[in-house]
Amino acid sequence: MKLYGYFRSSAAYRVRIALNLKGLKPEMAFVHLRHGVQGQPEFTALNPEKLVPALAVDGQVLSQSLAIIEYLEETHPTPALLPADPLDRARVRALALAVACDIHPLDNLRVLKHLKNAMGHSQEEVDSWYRHWIAVGLSGLEARLAGDPRTGRFCHGDTPGLADALLVPQLYNARRMDCPLDGFPTLLRIDSACRDLPAFIAAAPENQPDAEA
Amino acid sequence: MKLYGYFRSSAAYRVRIALNLKGLKPEMAFVHLRHGVQGQPEFTALNPEKLVPALAVDGQVLSQSLAIIEYLEETHPTPALLPADPLDRARVRALALAVACDIHPLDNLRVLKHLKNAMGHSQEEVDSWYRHWIAVGLSGLEARLAGDPRTGRFCHGDTPGLADALLVPQLYNARRMDCPLDGFPTLLRIDSACRDLPAFIAAAPENQPDAEA
Repeated sequence: MKLYGYFRSSAAYRVRIALNLKGLKPEMAFVHLRHGVQGQPEFTALNPEKLVPALAVDGQVLSQSLAIIEYLEETHPTPALLPADPLDRARVRALALAVACDIHPLDNLRVLKHLKNAMGHSQEEVDSWYRHWIAVGLSGLEARLAGDPRTGRFCHGDTPGLADALLVPQLYNARRMDCPLDGFPTLLRIDSACRDLPAFIAAAPENQPDAEA
Repeated sequence: MKLYGYFRSSAAYRVRIALNLKGLKPEMAFVHLRHGVQGQPEFTALNPEKLVPALAVDGQVLSQSLAIIEYLEETHPTPALLPADPLDRARVRALALAVACDIHPLDNLRVLKHLKNAMGHSQEEVDSWYRHWIAVGLSGLEARLAGDPRTGRFCHGDTPGLADALLVPQLYNARRMDCPLDGFPTLLRIDSACRDLPAFIAAAPENQPDAEA
């Protein structure tokens, strides 16, 4: 297996957490998103969507962080990142998708660049956009997690799993952009519990070989 | 089961297709997104994320269209919407997520409203934003589907499945906004094959009880 990522890509960060939780150590390749390497032919031949992460495995290249993590779950089921019961699995997947579909896509690099370069927004306006969607999305997640007895030390019970692998990178991004997080005590508590674990520490952007200051 | 949806919600449309492919007929409830019903207490008590679709089942409320469809797949496995092989499942999920994460979130109603009302863009600028992300996202999907021998009459082989349930609503939206689709012959061919099927016809926005002109 070979993982194509970028230290600060939140989607690559998710996959690194999942790999670490499962004790898997693929070869790592680095795609410098700010230098535009994702749009160069050698990478688009691998992933025409021009996005990281991508996982090369068995002669194929898998894309989309959640599809990659589901693949890892199916092929390396222990330890499980999803609970066993279908209703619980739906809960965990919904928490993960609330990050992957409702928060992150609005705040990723290509969107922020488009707002600034193509639509003429100031950095202040772009930052305000960013914080708006973080606040909206995290509010929904906080309500969902705080009000549910299935929430434990982690997003679902007392074992880290898929939803935690999505939450932690999203909060990392939120902090980088100085988003106010006081209103999300449940998210902060879970994030803190996760970031004590070796799998999450080793996956953190600042601990990657391609990390920059 | 009770599905909370809105005729024109692309995410609800996906779930309707999946339900129809599996021959499931839940009770239907209608949440008028343009009238803001998703933000009223009776609905936010069900789904604090204020989004449709939501599926009430066994005393719980599931959210996020992909989590709902995975739940249906696990609890009603026949006919399958995902192939059996893990690499193929990853491919189909990645196609679905390319729509769910990389196209739709940028073009949904709340985002378009925010661009117009909070950020002061004209309708023309909002439309241009919409078409930009449709073009970027569909280009990636077209490249991925056209270049892969696993693509058949449908996104994966000759049986409709998860990726088709995501593609068709996205193309419906693209057509509503007059996005140019000439550059996506593979997507159009698959979309046409899908829209010949009763499951897709019955799921179409114009065929819902809450449809408006």
